[in-house]
Amino acid sequence: MEYKSVKGTRDFLPLQMQKRNYIFDTIKQVYRNHGFLPIETPAMENLQTLMGKYGDEGDKLLFKILDSGNFLREEKTEEFVSRLQNGELNKATKMICEKGLRYDLTVPFARFVVNHQNDIVLPFKRYQIQPVWRADRPQKGRYREFYQCDADVIGSNSLMNEVELLQIIDEVFTLFGLPISIKLNNRKILAAFAQMLEKEDCLTDLTVAIDKLDKIGQQKVLEELKDKGFSEKDCNSDLPILNINGNNAEKIAQLHELIGNTEIGKQGLEELQYVLEKSKQADIKSIEVDLTLARGLNYYTGAIIEVKALDVEIGSITGGGRYDNLTGIFGMPGISGVGISFGADRIYDCLEEKNLFPENTGVLTSVLFINFGEEESNHALRLSGVLRKNGISCEIYPESVKMKKQMKYANDRKFPYVIMIGEEEIKNQKYVLKDMVSGEQFTLSTEEIIEKLK
Amino acid sequence: MEYKSVKGTRDFLPLQMQKRNYIFDTIKQVYRNHGFLPIETPAMENLQTLMGKYGDEGDKLLFKILDSGNFLREEKTEEFVSRLQNGELNKATKMICEKGLRYDLTVPFARFVVNHQNDIVLPFKRYQIQPVWRADRPQKGRYREFYQCDADVIGSNSLMNEVELLQIIDEVFTLFGLPISIKLNNRKILAAFAQMLEKEDCLTDLTVAIDKLDKIGQQKVLEELKDKGFSEKDCNSDLPILNINGNNAEKIAQLHELIGNTEIGKQGLEELQYVLEKSKQADIKSIEVDLTLARGLNYYTGAIIEVKALDVEIGSITGGGRYDNLTGIFGMPGISGVGISFGADRIYDCLEEKNLFPENTGVLTSVLFINFGEEESNHALRLSGVLRKNGISCEIYPESVKMKKQMKYANDRKFPYVIMIGEEEIKNQKYVLKDMVSGEQFTLSTEEIIEKLK
Repeated sequence: MEYKSVKGTRDFLPLQMQKRNYIFDTIKQVYRNHGFLPIETPAMENLQTLMGKYGDEGDKLLFKILDSGNFLREEKTEEFVSRLQNGELNKATKMICEKGLRYDLTVPFARFVVNHQNDIVLPFKRYQIQPVWRADRPQKGRYREFYQCDADVIGSNSLMNEVELLQIIDEVFTLFGLPISIKLNNRKILAAFAQMLEKEDCLTDLTVAIDKLDKIGQQKVLEELKDKGFSEKDCNSDLPILNINGNNAEKIAQLHELIGNTEIGKQGLEELQYVLEKSKQADIKSIEVDLTLARGLNYYTGAIIEVKALDVEIGSITGGGRYDNLTGIFGMPGISGVGISFGADRIYDCLEEKNLFPENTGVLTSVLFINFGEEESNHALRLSGVLRKNGISCEIYPESVKMKKQMKYANDRKFPYVIMIGEEEIKNQKYVLKDMVSGEQFTLSTEEIIEKLK
Repeated sequence: MEYKSVKGTRDFLPLQMQKRNYIFDTIKQVYRNHGFLPIETPAMENLQTLMGKYGDEGDKLLFKILDSGNFLREEKTEEFVSRLQNGELNKATKMICEKGLRYDLTVPFARFVVNHQNDIVLPFKRYQIQPVWRADRPQKGRYREFYQCDADVIGSNSLMNEVELLQIIDEVFTLFGLPISIKLNNRKILAAFAQMLEKEDCLTDLTVAIDKLDKIGQQKVLEELKDKGFSEKDCNSDLPILNINGNNAEKIAQLHELIGNTEIGKQGLEELQYVLEKSKQADIKSIEVDLTLARGLNYYTGAIIEVKALDVEIGSITGGGRYDNLTGIFGMPGISGVGISFGADRIYDCLEEKNLFPENTGVLTSVLFINFGEEESNHALRLSGVLRKNGISCEIYPESVKMKKQMKYANDRKFPYVIMIGEEEIKNQKYVLKDMVSGEQFTLSTEEIIEKLK
């Protein structure tokens, strides 16, 4: 029998872990520097918390956990079987499962806010870096377990929050050394266009369609809109929203002309301009107004943010926006917020492709002590303790086997340094330090070794 | 309807996260300093990987994940129902669940080693800090989701590995400032006693019974052994293993007399003495030979390690030992190892009780900028950027609301400093820094602020 990991999930080897931790630690550090506070929620939530929050498709993609013990009582069997036979899969599932694995970090966060409303101070800025699970069909680049790296500010309508999140994006990718473009839009502007077409109630159809402009082209977008009931006339002429061009200032000028006279359009434009102006003050570069940006879900109500890596074909690597009424689904209305989420897996691929992981990411331990026997290893025990106290990671090869085998281990593990302590070295209190890259050897005192390696 | 977290699981608020991260980071840092490498495995494993590894009781405590989509085909319904009716819960479960949540980190690690045998170098030293899940009845101090913090060395029989793990324990608790006693035993010594009683095949019964000596007392232990078929004679006399006293040297002297003439006893004693002697060389204090230490499971084959906090009533806070044949269950024989696991939840409680969390654990962000309006917040945007580049965490209050409300936020969030930038300050390029603890105010330049806060 072969034992494998679950399809669509991944083991992470040390070098991958090192690189992933570099990504998580960088994001975490920037979040913390901006006053965001860490929280964690459990992997499982009650299904009543999760179901109905992600649409029918999402409900199907929830991993459900079988109730423990006797999960189906005798007297319930008949009902269960008849539910199954009638294709009432959801109802049958609820009879044997009351818990599921979280699908994202937003819904558990909303539940968290409601449960802990007396323990938190508004505005509440939280970050949360944890895995989520989706019962998707596994395919290249799509996993059933993956990490999300979310930050949200809730309980404040100020657009300063949008600016801060843009700052965070700018700082994180500057630290990664990855050139990006930040796309910015505002849902209210899209709503104004829907209003112009007398299709306010079809805002979602409009945004879903134009979200695909990049992928399927203008002609197909117009066809899709026609299918959704937008008028022949509108769809046969060029839709103005698809033809706004130029730099940010030029786009905004055109927008003013087109939708500046509607209430919602004016409001959206004001928000957009405020965020752009403040971002300039905060010295954030590379923000581009992109009216095709809609981010599928009918979820955002104000700013919409998306990040693309320049010169890497990979789609969006970070996204976010403002939403109303985060916790309304859990009976606590009036809490709006704005948030972003870094796509760690795609960022990993970008940094790999562009060779941007720091050079020392591969170095996991600095020094290997070669083991020459009992007396020598006693000495190594003491010296290794001193090195560690000075922040130098090191280990002693656990067995005094042949030098060749120990050196092979040092090479395979990519130790940058090896220390050799034999009889002579113990007598002189000077030890042989070998630079494994250059091959050079030095005979040094404890202090000199620390000096060199620190 | 009330939405709550799943019973037996926990949300972690920022301050708790901060304290938990202090524990995890300390352990991680010491593991890394000793050359241990991080890995991670997925939350779910195939049930065939998990089942049968933790005994019948363990199998029951596995959380099983319902297969996605149509989890029970029509033609299987009858078989499923009849399995349920016959009480064949396991077989019925297997028909609708092929995956489960990991129960510990050891079995997934064994599966990992088998799957990645060509990617790792032996001896392989790995650490792994991840949550595990158990369908236990929730009760005080027992959770259905909790973190394990494991380190193991596999592929080396050298007792130097035991010494290194003891070093790690010593260093971690020294960093925590928590006084501990490290209990050390060796399974071979216990085996020698079983042999003496002509009960080699009842080693597990013997160890399970004497493991309880602390809790139930000598009389009850002897009664339990009698029940398990140990002879009246042996159980009515005082069992010698229960009457070995004194310091480590005295205990070893008595052991030599009692079991030094048996092959396995001699071997166990040699191992114990070697580890004690090397530990002395490594300057590890507070190791105590404890022959009642058996750690329940019939799993360890050599050293057995357990850590107790002095002056805190909480049971074992770290444990481990040497085992043979980690990966044999997955078809890869001959890999032995030795490992330890820190009990993060109990360590948390100890540090809390003894007030040992570092003083600054409560400080999550250093500076709040009071928001006085557009012009002023532009200035704050720039200054906050400079502070962050100097490693000082800070945030701007997002709205220019009343000073009182902003100061309340600063107090509630426990900011140690507040910076105020008004018209006057902008003109003079000197800003008001308020120390929130002492209440003092300083008027300082950017450089002076950095100097003071860094």
